[in-house]
Amino acid sequence: MEGQPHPYAPTDLKLPGYVPNFLTQFTIVSVYGLSSLIWILSGRSRKLAKIDRLLMCWWAFTGLTHVILEGYFVFSPEFYKDKTAHYLAEVCDSRYAARDAATVTVEGVTVVFEGRASLLAVCAIASGKSYSYILQFSVSLGQLYGTAVYFLTAYLEGDHFAASSYHCYVYYIGANASWVVIPSLIAIRCWNKIFSAVQVQGQKKTKSH
Amino acid sequence: MEGQPHPYAPTDLKLPGYVPNFLTQFTIVSVYGLSSLIWILSGRSRKLAKIDRLLMCWWAFTGLTHVILEGYFVFSPEFYKDKTAHYLAEVCDSRYAARDAATVTVEGVTVVFEGRASLLAVCAIASGKSYSYILQFSVSLGQLYGTAVYFLTAYLEGDHFAASSYHCYVYYIGANASWVVIPSLIAIRCWNKIFSAVQVQGQKKTKSH
Repeated sequence: MEGQPHPYAPTDLKLPGYVPNFLTQFTIVSVYGLSSLIWILSGRSRKLAKIDRLLMCWWAFTGLTHVILEGYFVFSPEFYKDKTAHYLAEVCDSRYAARDAATVTVEGVTVVFEGRASLLAVCAIASGKSYSYILQFSVSLGQLYGTAVYFLTAYLEGDHFAASSYHCYVYYIGANASWVVIPSLIAIRCWNKIFSAVQVQGQKKTKSH
Repeated sequence: MEGQPHPYAPTDLKLPGYVPNFLTQFTIVSVYGLSSLIWILSGRSRKLAKIDRLLMCWWAFTGLTHVILEGYFVFSPEFYKDKTAHYLAEVCDSRYAARDAATVTVEGVTVVFEGRASLLAVCAIASGKSYSYILQFSVSLGQLYGTAVYFLTAYLEGDHFAASSYHCYVYYIGANASWVVIPSLIAIRCWNKIFSAVQVQGQKKTKSH
């Protein structure tokens, strides 16, 4: 089994017991299409603005990704040996299979904190909680930090993790780009919302003096 | 020079050109005692509460640490060769000298973002800016994430970075503990401040309907 070819880079990495898997990207996409149900269900509420409904979809999607996909990786160290073609094994970065310390750390923090906090954000937006903005801001900042550590360590280690194929390169950069653009937009929005709430309170205090 | 003994763990790590340094911890402490000047200067303002003055001292201290100490590490890869006894070379973690990817990444993010944002926080508190809480919250969260990555990667790599001496162990755990406890307290305080500001604004909106 030692010499079994695998899709990870570097190709000379030994993964004893590796079993190839056959799950298509279609399955990955359709599993998370489930989060679009949130859109339909939230449409019933008249209180929720379109932007809030969109945000709920995002938090459901990212929360499920963190908890299921990344949780499976962190807590199943031998996932690449899984004989039941599991979508996780489609990940192209060899650092996942090699259990690189920085990758495991970032994924661990993401699963334990950001995964659950994302799902909490869905409920917080739906019920209009006052901590909704600061919660969304926290999770977005954590996602940005995690993505930065993920790519910077890859760069510093000279690890061309997506060198195995063009498909992997496009898929990996593309998939991770979402966790740069969307959290940035959400963080800016929350910053502005919080800024104006604190500003209004400050003006009120000045008046009352 | 190859066999020159050095204080870093593991002791068999080769650091060609390493020059021992003689700077005492006293110097490290007194350099950052400068931030206590902020306490004296801020005492002149009647507008600033004691808690705000304390926070300004912390942000000046942590900001200078990030920018000077950590900045020197990130942008001077061969710092351990420095013949002018520089306090940075007193750092006990071999991962600094070995330029471990996770350590360089965390320090890089800390210097570029958190260092400057900490110094901005001093000014934001002094001038009572509305973004003061959200800024302090962001930096604290970044510090907590960085410390988590720093210790978790050390643990996962089985790198007993402080194994060289008891002094290093106490110094390193002790010094890093400040960046767990203080950012946690600040983050909780800011969360509460922001929560109540948003809550007040929410109640106002409900009334005006």
